[in-house]
Amino acid sequence: MSGMELVLILAESAVELVPPELTKHPSILKLAKKRGKKPSEILLDRSYHHAAMRSLKDAEKRGRPDIVHTTLLELLGTPLNREGLLQTYVHTVDNKVVEIDSNVRLPVNYDRFVGLLEQLYAVGKVPEAGQPLLAIRKQTLNQLLGEIKPSTTVAFTTLGEYKDLSRLCEELTKERKPAILIGGFPRGHFSKETLNLADRVVRIDREALEAWVVASRAVYAYELAIGLPKQRLR
Amino acid sequence: MSGMELVLILAESAVELVPPELTKHPSILKLAKKRGKKPSEILLDRSYHHAAMRSLKDAEKRGRPDIVHTTLLELLGTPLNREGLLQTYVHTVDNKVVEIDSNVRLPVNYDRFVGLLEQLYAVGKVPEAGQPLLAIRKQTLNQLLGEIKPSTTVAFTTLGEYKDLSRLCEELTKERKPAILIGGFPRGHFSKETLNLADRVVRIDREALEAWVVASRAVYAYELAIGLPKQRLR
Repeated sequence: MSGMELVLILAESAVELVPPELTKHPSILKLAKKRGKKPSEILLDRSYHHAAMRSLKDAEKRGRPDIVHTTLLELLGTPLNREGLLQTYVHTVDNKVVEIDSNVRLPVNYDRFVGLLEQLYAVGKVPEAGQPLLAIRKQTLNQLLGEIKPSTTVAFTTLGEYKDLSRLCEELTKERKPAILIGGFPRGHFSKETLNLADRVVRIDREALEAWVVASRAVYAYELAIGLPKQRLR
Repeated sequence: MSGMELVLILAESAVELVPPELTKHPSILKLAKKRGKKPSEILLDRSYHHAAMRSLKDAEKRGRPDIVHTTLLELLGTPLNREGLLQTYVHTVDNKVVEIDSNVRLPVNYDRFVGLLEQLYAVGKVPEAGQPLLAIRKQTLNQLLGEIKPSTTVAFTTLGEYKDLSRLCEELTKERKPAILIGGFPRGHFSKETLNLADRVVRIDREALEAWVVASRAVYAYELAIGLPKQRLR
């Protein structure tokens, strides 16, 4: 099944450490103290830092690690991933890239997932010794794509042309190494830089759908296109 | 599009309040105190109560509200649900049924979702006044199905016969009111009682898949079978 691999990148994902301009905010100080960490060591999270985020630039696209958590749980549990045919990356709003081993078992508990990401930001990879299951590095989306070298890159966004997902995935099976970009943020759009990196910009539904909904159906549609479900029932 | 509705029931879901035999356990008392609630008012949760659950009967099927959270986020965000064509129920291991309004916006934060369920257990519906978005009642799966009266009920389990999901969904479109049962628990199997309530028992993959993976692809396969994605792009 070589040549059937799909690359899926959650792009501009709403994951970052609390930025310097917010480390003195009361709600952030309180949560950091409760967690026994410095404000600069905890993830920005709208569920807890809503008030602090009011003054933040592009705030509507930031502070939603839950989007990455839910979407990764979906992706890592798919048959495509279990076959080793899905390579998942998380690119963040502040230009970090998290590389994810297909075999990683993520914490199902959200607070533990956040703790794991904070550890990742602190030490760079998890586990620290041996082959990492998660590794983070400073990298732009442009640099990441330069490293992966997809044969085609498709961005999913409501700014795109209407495209039937099943048909798109059938087209992608003819590609040597297709990559899909899904926005890992709650509202707003990909930046112009990101859109410029895509060969195609498509819209798969009338409405904006959540990242986890788009990701799960994109992978399943791709599985259907390569005939994986039938093959796994044989 | 009447007659195209799908009923999806997360059955025997691993959601319950801390049972009487565990309310004195140190880890439960500690968490209850931290949350400012009585031990009997908080949800059983393996992420926090792992030690306390060791002595519990059928422990491997219990204490995983995250499964319901992640799966509901998937289901409620689908186009099928947005069209009002998906009716979702959560049946729990202790025979409660949570009825879910298609329009509810669940908390994306896990701790808030747990808080919402605890409120639901305490007061029966949310919001307390007016048309409820979530309502809970004492009800067995048998009673729930007696109320819904599906024209056919299909249980998804690795105990079932291999069945291609796409083909299954095509068959379901010929039904007046199809219902799907997906296990809302992490390990083990449906009880014999549950299996006896199903007209068909099917297995859609070689491996056991997580509830949220099964639910998201079942809904998408059903959408494809009724032609919804193409219709929504017109």
